[in-house]
Amino acid sequence: MPETNRPLVISAPAPRTLELIFTPAALMRLHERYRVVEADADDIAGLGADILAGARYIIGQPPLSEETLGGMPALRAVLNVESNLVNNMPYEVLFQRGIHVVTTGQVFAEPVAEMGLAMALNLARGIVDADLAFREGRELWGGEGNRSARLLSGSEIGIIGFGDLGKALNRVLSGFRAKIRVHDPWLPASMLREAGVEPAPLATVLAESDFVFVVAAVTSENEGFLGAEAFAAMRRGAAFILLSRAGVVDFDALVAAVESGHILAASDVFPEEPLPLDHPLRRLPGFLRSAHRAGALDVAFKRMGEMVLEDMDLMDRGLPPMRCKRAERETVARMRSRPVSVN
Amino acid sequence: MPETNRPLVISAPAPRTLELIFTPAALMRLHERYRVVEADADDIAGLGADILAGARYIIGQPPLSEETLGGMPALRAVLNVESNLVNNMPYEVLFQRGIHVVTTGQVFAEPVAEMGLAMALNLARGIVDADLAFREGRELWGGEGNRSARLLSGSEIGIIGFGDLGKALNRVLSGFRAKIRVHDPWLPASMLREAGVEPAPLATVLAESDFVFVVAAVTSENEGFLGAEAFAAMRRGAAFILLSRAGVVDFDALVAAVESGHILAASDVFPEEPLPLDHPLRRLPGFLRSAHRAGALDVAFKRMGEMVLEDMDLMDRGLPPMRCKRAERETVARMRSRPVSVN
Amino acid sequence: MPETNRPLVISAPAPRTLELIFTPAALMRLHERYRVVEADADDIAGLGADILAGARYIIGQPPLSEETLGGMPALRAVLNVESNLVNNMPYEVLFQRGIHVVTTGQVFAEPVAEMGLAMALNLARGIVDADLAFREGRELWGGEGNRSARLLSGSEIGIIGFGDLGKALNRVLSGFRAKIRVHDPWLPASMLREAGVEPAPLATVLAESDFVFVVAAVTSENEGFLGAEAFAAMRRGAAFILLSRAGVVDFDALVAAVESGHILAASDVFPEEPLPLDHPLRRLPGFLRSAHRAGALDVAFKRMGEMVLEDMDLMDRGLPPMRCKRAERETVARMRSRPVSVN
Amino acid sequence: MPETNRPLVISAPAPRTLELIFTPAALMRLHERYRVVEADADDIAGLGADILAGARYIIGQPPLSEETLGGMPALRAVLNVESNLVNNMPYEVLFQRGIHVVTTGQVFAEPVAEMGLAMALNLARGIVDADLAFREGRELWGGEGNRSARLLSGSEIGIIGFGDLGKALNRVLSGFRAKIRVHDPWLPASMLREAGVEPAPLATVLAESDFVFVVAAVTSENEGFLGAEAFAAMRRGAAFILLSRAGVVDFDALVAAVESGHILAASDVFPEEPLPLDHPLRRLPGFLRSAHRAGALDVAFKRMGEMVLEDMDLMDRGLPPMRCKRAERETVARMRSRPVSVN
Repeated sequence: MPETNRPLVISAPAPRTLELIFTPAALMRLHERYRVVEADADDIAGLGADILAGARYIIGQPPLSEETLGGMPALRAVLNVESNLVNNMPYEVLFQRGIHVVTTGQVFAEPVAEMGLAMALNLARGIVDADLAFREGRELWGGEGNRSARLLSGSEIGIIGFGDLGKALNRVLSGFRAKIRVHDPWLPASMLREAGVEPAPLATVLAESDFVFVVAAVTSENEGFLGAEAFAAMRRGAAFILLSRAGVVDFDALVAAVESGHILAASDVFPEEPLPLDHPLRRLPGFLRSAHRAGALDVAFKRMGEMVLEDMDLMDRGLPPMRCKRAERETVARMRSRPVSVN
Repeated sequence: MPETNRPLVISAPAPRTLELIFTPAALMRLHERYRVVEADADDIAGLGADILAGARYIIGQPPLSEETLGGMPALRAVLNVESNLVNNMPYEVLFQRGIHVVTTGQVFAEPVAEMGLAMALNLARGIVDADLAFREGRELWGGEGNRSARLLSGSEIGIIGFGDLGKALNRVLSGFRAKIRVHDPWLPASMLREAGVEPAPLATVLAESDFVFVVAAVTSENEGFLGAEAFAAMRRGAAFILLSRAGVVDFDALVAAVESGHILAASDVFPEEPLPLDHPLRRLPGFLRSAHRAGALDVAFKRMGEMVLEDMDLMDRGLPPMRCKRAERETVARMRSRPVSVN
Repeated sequence: MPETNRPLVISAPAPRTLELIFTPAALMRLHERYRVVEADADDIAGLGADILAGARYIIGQPPLSEETLGGMPALRAVLNVESNLVNNMPYEVLFQRGIHVVTTGQVFAEPVAEMGLAMALNLARGIVDADLAFREGRELWGGEGNRSARLLSGSEIGIIGFGDLGKALNRVLSGFRAKIRVHDPWLPASMLREAGVEPAPLATVLAESDFVFVVAAVTSENEGFLGAEAFAAMRRGAAFILLSRAGVVDFDALVAAVESGHILAASDVFPEEPLPLDHPLRRLPGFLRSAHRAGALDVAFKRMGEMVLEDMDLMDRGLPPMRCKRAERETVARMRSRPVSVN
Repeated sequence: MPETNRPLVISAPAPRTLELIFTPAALMRLHERYRVVEADADDIAGLGADILAGARYIIGQPPLSEETLGGMPALRAVLNVESNLVNNMPYEVLFQRGIHVVTTGQVFAEPVAEMGLAMALNLARGIVDADLAFREGRELWGGEGNRSARLLSGSEIGIIGFGDLGKALNRVLSGFRAKIRVHDPWLPASMLREAGVEPAPLATVLAESDFVFVVAAVTSENEGFLGAEAFAAMRRGAAFILLSRAGVVDFDALVAAVESGHILAASDVFPEEPLPLDHPLRRLPGFLRSAHRAGALDVAFKRMGEMVLEDMDLMDRGLPPMRCKRAERETVARMRSRPVSVN
């Protein structure tokens, strides 16, 4: 296609790179279909009036002033290749103009769900410590080694939050004949029932589960909402698995609850990352650690590029984006996740 | 029910005990419905002619001579509470007389399948070593820690053997949208297709899978059939997960294949149990160890009792047993598993 | 709750009525939570400035002028209790202001999907004519009566359109082990794959299916897109099942294709409703008729009220509606369905 | 393969024919692998001592005397290509010798299940009468035509009998989110639970279902067990769908229950086949008729041949047959179905 006919895309995916989120083949398709202008995320305005005037899409979430946006009449979407929405552009203006702001965090749902299931099975069967004991010649054979072992099959499972990640978790749990209760105040009960899960208040999810998965985004309303009281309400020996953001949990209370032997726990996220070398979580028995690596698989990043291409194709045809998740006027301001600094 | 009206059951479950395989409630039901005579497994004949003449069921698989059986005209079933069939009774005589010989190994299918899935996820995500590294302050964060990480979702999976365990594995894998190929020469291809898996020759299963699960019973025909050639045929980096019996694998070849970095592996069974303290498997990187504890959960043992009660109830009503697995004339002599010595 | 604290709802659901769409219990909840003002749909402005100023929701899709909307600063949503969007309000203004326009047509998905499956099975097995023959003593027994009978199980199925109805159809087909191809140009291929169906061009869906279900909404772009050429491309003896809107099909061509014996067909919608008494479709062999009754079940209408209550509850809490389907800026103007005149 | 090396098969499939149950390709495979001797079913002994002595399999269920069997030392299986077991051979002798007697009735499960679902949907939506009314210009449009219409989705469903047909029915119902209760006294409750259905007594299944499917084989114990009392126990307006054998139902009581308007019904089987021309069932409103054609599809018959080939292949390799259903010592004598006279 001649240069001038290809729609113009501003590329500012930092801290991602196009190479991270597109396979070589997808990157080639991107360039075939679009005129891609690489931009310094911190100086979109510096691209000049012509570029701004012609731009149809922005890949990334660079800071955008109202004035800059004013010079971008052709803009249809900001395709944020993170899971977070940073408060660095006038969302209200974007919504008014019908410019979509979409995120690609869905790509992490599947890898994180698999890690969550792995964590649950590990806690249920004590796999890490059993392997370590075996390496050291201290292993217990057969039933001897299963004093506290448990099945997921037929268990009661609670999921807190039922966005993409909660749904992916529900899917990988589908072969376990478990009773799954979900707490998500942002979704109507009937939609949870249609997904085959039982809607339940938070207190029920905590008190009636053998495994509790926390996959809720952190918002202005739920920071630290899972603390000492929540852990005390859990069944003795139940497993608490944190997969979304550290901000929703009071970690001191979590350490105490695990230390006391009341619950087991696993987490992929931590109040500080990296965690200080002397942090008690590093050596806490009954706790399984993952260094924020549940989602960050190359295959997940590469799906971001596919999603971006699929939604730009729909928008090129005058249709709304269906693949990525759209930011919502009502909730965009409530999101409290920190921006990613590493991939 | 008056003593004399209750059907007579000879109890000889060693090395199990009635307390291991029945919950207190189930044990009460057993005694309410049946007159239970506890026997020394090594001296069934010693129970005396009256007991033998009246016995309807034997729980356990004690040695039985043709002569002893001759004195047991009322016998309907030997309910073996193991997974193995020991060659200690004249099976042909039992089959001729229509006396069912049933096993309860199915109870282990679900726990072993969960352990198998856990092993696969552990190998795919390097969970044990990542937790160890975290304890020691050597952890890698985010994508850095995922260089060799992989998903089960969308992967190609091979299952060797499709008895109760293979079916349970297929079920816990049902949420992963994986392509599952199965090799089982004892089942017709159309039955595998009906179960939603693709029947395939062994060579295809080995060469085309990202994860290979071995759940085949060891028979007179397949001892050591998975050796150096099989491992060499596998994809580089694929995971080999052994869940059934050590006898089907050449362990020296397995150690070599893992040591070379060609494949990853996990096993619940070992050529010697306990494994010698200096065995290379104890410290082999890329290998996940489980000390024959995948199935031996209390909840599994307790289901044995339920199965026994359900099938005795059917047989009491003149119906065939449907819950336990029946020994087959054609295959009973091919089974090569060692008897269990510990539970 | 005191009158003045309850949010104000304008009720203008014609041609529906509140009694049609709410169960008595749901209607009570509506009145408990909201102050409901019944309005003449043709004169919303006539409600007076105070009512307009306070109104948070409109149930129904009455004509609204830009001026009237200008006097409704508190309006959060228009909850249209039809499946259609009539061009009787300035949608662009509503979108700019972030006022949601939602439809409840999803309630018809399940009943229509069941009717669609019933039609497919009826055509496959000739059930109507077999019952008629039986009444008249002309029935053929056993295999004699099955010369053209076919199974859905294992067949190839095409679905044109994959909105709520297409998804519901896919769900009721889930037990049939069929290969399902879907054509929907408004959805990215990867989302179809995630739903377990194969994305395909229209030509493939037509040519490679034993059963073709048409569940696409009629738009400005697809009127009459299924005509003589489409039917000729279908497999001989295949079944064409129309469930969405008559406007997408050239009915003369459909009559000809069925009359010639090339395909079988069923339809719930017709170019004129009621259909003239002398229309050839009334007596066309190989054609199954349903008088636009596939969706209009009382249970479906009652779910509309539940959906409205669930979404108003979310919006009362400052959240976006999740239960009903939101009109989209890009597509609202393309919808070409006629308004419903009967329920 | 040289004539003498191929295993010998006696073919006596009457009233079936080899052409009915084998595709041309399968028939070719049969002849390539086996030496097939066509026999007059009524004179197997007349084949001569050599043929009898060498025969490994019999396809069909011809009368066999103990003496004839005595001359057949190589016989491994009688592959009955019907669903019925006729009492025309000394089963006890066959069981003692370990000669398998297998049936291929499973092939009908899928077609009959589809017909059963079609019947349920037809009764729920009044499809036959609505189409008739439409032909005659009497149709009612939209909700007017749905006064008694109902959904399967979310309904309560009862299944009586859970053999191959009950399982196939459960599978085609899997997309309907229905509560399914099953009564089958020949199966332990835990197996029903594992299949995802709720085991229930007959009385509960009758009283708590919107749709009752009868798929139980007729035995010496259940002849006519569904009579006036059973129908009276059903919910008003519920649907009774008979798919297995007429013998389990009191048809006069069924006619009365439908005539009174208490229930709707459908049946594929009748007390006399063909049914007399003046039988009230022929014109009974609220009753849907199928002339014993639910299972008799060509594709079903052809699967018989595949099953026979698959099981003979297993037995050739010294394995037990797994594909066909084996007759059981305990129940063979209880089966009361009449032999088929037409295919």
